[in-house]
Amino acid sequence: MKRSDRLVAMTNYLIEHPSQLVSLPFFSKEMDSAKSSISEDLTIINKNFQKQGIGYLESISGAAGGVKYIPSYSLENCKSFIRDLCEQLEDPGRILPGGYLYMSDLLNEPSKVRNIGRLFASAFSDLEIDVVVTVATKGIPLAYAVASFLNVPVVIVRRDPKVTEGSTVSINYVSGSSKKIQTMVLPKRSLQEGAKVCIIDDFMKAGGTINGMKALLDEFKAEVTAVGVLAEAEDEEEDRVVLDYTSIVQINNVDMKNKQIEVREGNFFDHYSENHI
Amino acid sequence: MKRSDRLVAMTNYLIEHPSQLVSLPFFSKEMDSAKSSISEDLTIINKNFQKQGIGYLESISGAAGGVKYIPSYSLENCKSFIRDLCEQLEDPGRILPGGYLYMSDLLNEPSKVRNIGRLFASAFSDLEIDVVVTVATKGIPLAYAVASFLNVPVVIVRRDPKVTEGSTVSINYVSGSSKKIQTMVLPKRSLQEGAKVCIIDDFMKAGGTINGMKALLDEFKAEVTAVGVLAEAEDEEEDRVVLDYTSIVQINNVDMKNKQIEVREGNFFDHYSENHI
Repeated sequence: MKRSDRLVAMTNYLIEHPSQLVSLPFFSKEMDSAKSSISEDLTIINKNFQKQGIGYLESISGAAGGVKYIPSYSLENCKSFIRDLCEQLEDPGRILPGGYLYMSDLLNEPSKVRNIGRLFASAFSDLEIDVVVTVATKGIPLAYAVASFLNVPVVIVRRDPKVTEGSTVSINYVSGSSKKIQTMVLPKRSLQEGAKVCIIDDFMKAGGTINGMKALLDEFKAEVTAVGVLAEAEDEEEDRVVLDYTSIVQINNVDMKNKQIEVREGNFFDHYSENHI
Repeated sequence: MKRSDRLVAMTNYLIEHPSQLVSLPFFSKEMDSAKSSISEDLTIINKNFQKQGIGYLESISGAAGGVKYIPSYSLENCKSFIRDLCEQLEDPGRILPGGYLYMSDLLNEPSKVRNIGRLFASAFSDLEIDVVVTVATKGIPLAYAVASFLNVPVVIVRRDPKVTEGSTVSINYVSGSSKKIQTMVLPKRSLQEGAKVCIIDDFMKAGGTINGMKALLDEFKAEVTAVGVLAEAEDEEEDRVVLDYTSIVQINNVDMKNKQIEVREGNFFDHYSENHI
């Protein structure tokens, strides 16, 4: 195989298999080329990925070694993406009765959802994560986007059990802002005991839902290593029940009367550090 | 920019922007290279994508022309993916009380979900589709996977209205197999009138849910151009209310007593034709 063909095939393979160890012999066999040529190709690809700010190739040496594509977004890419998102969210047409904000249209765009996933994966790339957990419904696409970059499965907590999921574990919890009692269920066979979990959701106010998920995950002896929310709403500090989380944007001052919203960067950059080899 | 760098950067760009027209001047500027060089690069990439069976580059000539990556899976790739899926589903451990089949674990794997999306996108690549519609909850990841390859947004039909979505349109419908009355809602601003819609869901028995979605979409004067379900269950012919659909697998004979299931290829290949330039 010629270098030009190898570069196309290997770039495609690495992008489709993020956070996954690929051995040099595998590429060598697939591309029908010497390991030395494959190594040179990987150097070119790595340099290029870094230049584009889409991550880097991590080399793992030894007999079980190889190369792993870590899809870490550059600081510049993260900043410009979050800036655009804030601008889009500040559109006064998004204000709904009750001071809520219409965000569904943004979450309906697969490419936007994928980029949000890339952001979280960048912030969490150094953490141990076995599975991404979210609660139905709006967090689901975000959870899949994060999980695809981290190369781990997704588990979805439901509000109601379904017959097609077998036996379940359920808990009741109090919603942080509305103080209502709600239920959450997780099929018994969906999560292994002691799993390291990343919780993803679209929105957080006081954090009652995320706290509920944590209580449910306790039943599985799971360890929550990361919590990521797309948008956090301003809330009285004393009401907040979740304190350790990563948010991409923060929604402030939804002013119904004057039709104004203020959307700022969340605490994302407190949890983000640019990785380089 | 050197050819090797261009090939990596352009391959990445095309894979991240499927079904999207990219102009030659755009690449020429981004890569700081002559259009003739870019054309040669695209020929190499196109040849390679076809060889890997992951699609092809469509050239659109004229002033508004350029190149579009059509992510069409080859016949061979589709066959081997569906074969593996059938084998995994035939595991007797999946049989749940009531003759249901546990499939959540497969739908929890982002890479598997992405490949299912690729399959549907291959079957539907010649159809006009403006938006992918699904119903909460299990169809959501599949819908996003299909939509990402077709480069269109996703709209999610819910069982219950949410305050954060504004005014909604709702319908009641009768579930095909259980004969229960159920409700479906869609926010008014989520869909444009006259949109061409692809419906995606994880499972279909009689087809009541999909028929319900069609009735709801009628209220938006939408045109359903494709229906895709991951798994269809054997059902008495006279009970089935949806007849035109594409299924990836067909589940037959869930035999609780002898712990046996038969899972076969669905009607996928009736709707699939291999595209070549």
